[in-house]
Amino acid sequence: MSELRRDPITGRWNIVDTDEPAGPDAFEVESRTPGGGKCPFCLGHEGLTPPEIYVVRPNGGSPNGPGWQVRVVANKFPALRIEGELNRRGLGLFDLCTGVGAHEVIVETPDHQRQMADLSLVELEQVLRAFKTRSLDLRGDKRFKYTLLFKNFGLSAGASLEHAHSQLIALPIVPKRVQEQLNGAWKYFEFRERCAYCDMMAQELQERERIVCENERFLAYCPYVSNFPFEIQILPKEHGADFAQITPEEIRDFTRILKATLLRLRHVLSDPSYNFIIHTTPIEARHHDEYHWHVELIPKLTRIAGFEWGTGFYINPTPPELAATFLRDAKPPCDSTSF
Amino acid sequence: MSELRRDPITGRWNIVDTDEPAGPDAFEVESRTPGGGKCPFCLGHEGLTPPEIYVVRPNGGSPNGPGWQVRVVANKFPALRIEGELNRRGLGLFDLCTGVGAHEVIVETPDHQRQMADLSLVELEQVLRAFKTRSLDLRGDKRFKYTLLFKNFGLSAGASLEHAHSQLIALPIVPKRVQEQLNGAWKYFEFRERCAYCDMMAQELQERERIVCENERFLAYCPYVSNFPFEIQILPKEHGADFAQITPEEIRDFTRILKATLLRLRHVLSDPSYNFIIHTTPIEARHHDEYHWHVELIPKLTRIAGFEWGTGFYINPTPPELAATFLRDAKPPCDSTSF
Repeated sequence: MSELRRDPITGRWNIVDTDEPAGPDAFEVESRTPGGGKCPFCLGHEGLTPPEIYVVRPNGGSPNGPGWQVRVVANKFPALRIEGELNRRGLGLFDLCTGVGAHEVIVETPDHQRQMADLSLVELEQVLRAFKTRSLDLRGDKRFKYTLLFKNFGLSAGASLEHAHSQLIALPIVPKRVQEQLNGAWKYFEFRERCAYCDMMAQELQERERIVCENERFLAYCPYVSNFPFEIQILPKEHGADFAQITPEEIRDFTRILKATLLRLRHVLSDPSYNFIIHTTPIEARHHDEYHWHVELIPKLTRIAGFEWGTGFYINPTPPELAATFLRDAKPPCDSTSF
Repeated sequence: MSELRRDPITGRWNIVDTDEPAGPDAFEVESRTPGGGKCPFCLGHEGLTPPEIYVVRPNGGSPNGPGWQVRVVANKFPALRIEGELNRRGLGLFDLCTGVGAHEVIVETPDHQRQMADLSLVELEQVLRAFKTRSLDLRGDKRFKYTLLFKNFGLSAGASLEHAHSQLIALPIVPKRVQEQLNGAWKYFEFRERCAYCDMMAQELQERERIVCENERFLAYCPYVSNFPFEIQILPKEHGADFAQITPEEIRDFTRILKATLLRLRHVLSDPSYNFIIHTTPIEARHHDEYHWHVELIPKLTRIAGFEWGTGFYINPTPPELAATFLRDAKPPCDSTSF
């Protein structure tokens, strides 16, 4: 029999197939052959993107020329535009608001052939520092209420360019899904005077059956209510609501666990497409005790169909306990997690 | 500039590209070549499915043999199983519940080559009557709180078999997304003492720019807050919370508008994959004044990526006003809507 499981924070249920659970071989994974062509994110093609907003250029060189290692530019096809006044108004029954926001691209390496998982710890740390710096910078703009960092890897996960990159969107509203987590975490805190995520982590660390890997400051595990097969959450062990307040020590451990997790995922699932999201507190938040920033890492293995759209709940063929076993036992090549 | 739009019922925002809107040619549509083989839903293969629960057999014939026109059977690979006690309990911080439910398949025609849109009005009406009868029957089971009728058409919309079929799932809980609509509709009712859907329909009928087609008892339109390009909602004009209470006159008009809408969608978008969902009130509901049953019809044209997963809000490249113009002006062949 399958199991229904309820997310203690959002109240959302899902269905987990504990009867005939699907292992890693049950999923088709799209093949990935790195192309070439005139990629706007490649070394020497800097003129094809808007000018750089942030850059890591350890050995100097001129702006928007070669010599960089990480490069942040405005998205050429932004979902929201940086210019303009925020104008929110009604339209009969409806509400609308001008589409003001920021949409930036973090190019993670000048080398077209390397994925995020291939970056050295030093290189990956530079990317994560760019995440932090750009998040902090966008807070200066009073029009914005939320910054979302995310990555789409692979065509089926929505990546339109294959060159390794992440994205940062600043929004004039707090998105529904974040608000849902905030509300749930707030209710839990009101009831127990503790952070729901800290409590969840404590339970995971005690039961240990859903843990993927950990280090001093971070934990990676498959959530009890995984909506998707091989879904992973990464959390700082020390309570912290705001990703942008990450300490230098935490960034090093975050770099380590992110690389280890990506390598395991690639090894167990033959290089799957995935989405990677950093959920953090809204910019002007009073939720510092209740909320806990975290990464959601979702390999793209299943299709969303009518049932999921209609109900908002998901059928997961792989119990997280099984997924975690595969990921924990994996011995990916070049799993070096020391700097 | 793009626009942010807010759903008046759920409070969910989305982003609509009103700047460079994407028309029907902007999307790739998977090619569809009807196969054959040993399809379990084909005439003569009745032995490959579980026994029939409901059947339309106008000229007689024996159960589970040929002669049928619509056939309902239990899903051979159910998401939830009909046997067992409902057992809900805690597990530390978490909640779980045994996966009890019903999962039925409505085979819409014995002919493998015909889609739902190809059915005659008489045939399609038989399918919609099967929806109603099976929904009513499953209410007798006190373990169930919600029945969801839906259809996945095409591989990318999650259909694993191409032979025309819909699905019915009975659930022991009211799903989150429905609860969200109920809560929103309830708040609106509390404030205005009117049904939000009726008010929305009144506004659409006055503005007319998002209407796809209508008849005496039904309206099809592209919602102001369409999360997906060419998304369509179909609603009964007379207030009604419960699909299963549909009258014989309404079924005839529902049949007409559904066929007309499916033909227009196929014509404008070159036979796209789609998901079709009937949202109705929970089985034991006290929401008869506030909620309004409706169909959500979502062609599968875009990919869900990190931004959508992270925020729960969607970027729609096609404003519903543009989508409705294409759908309204379409002249699909054999658009006969008289019985």
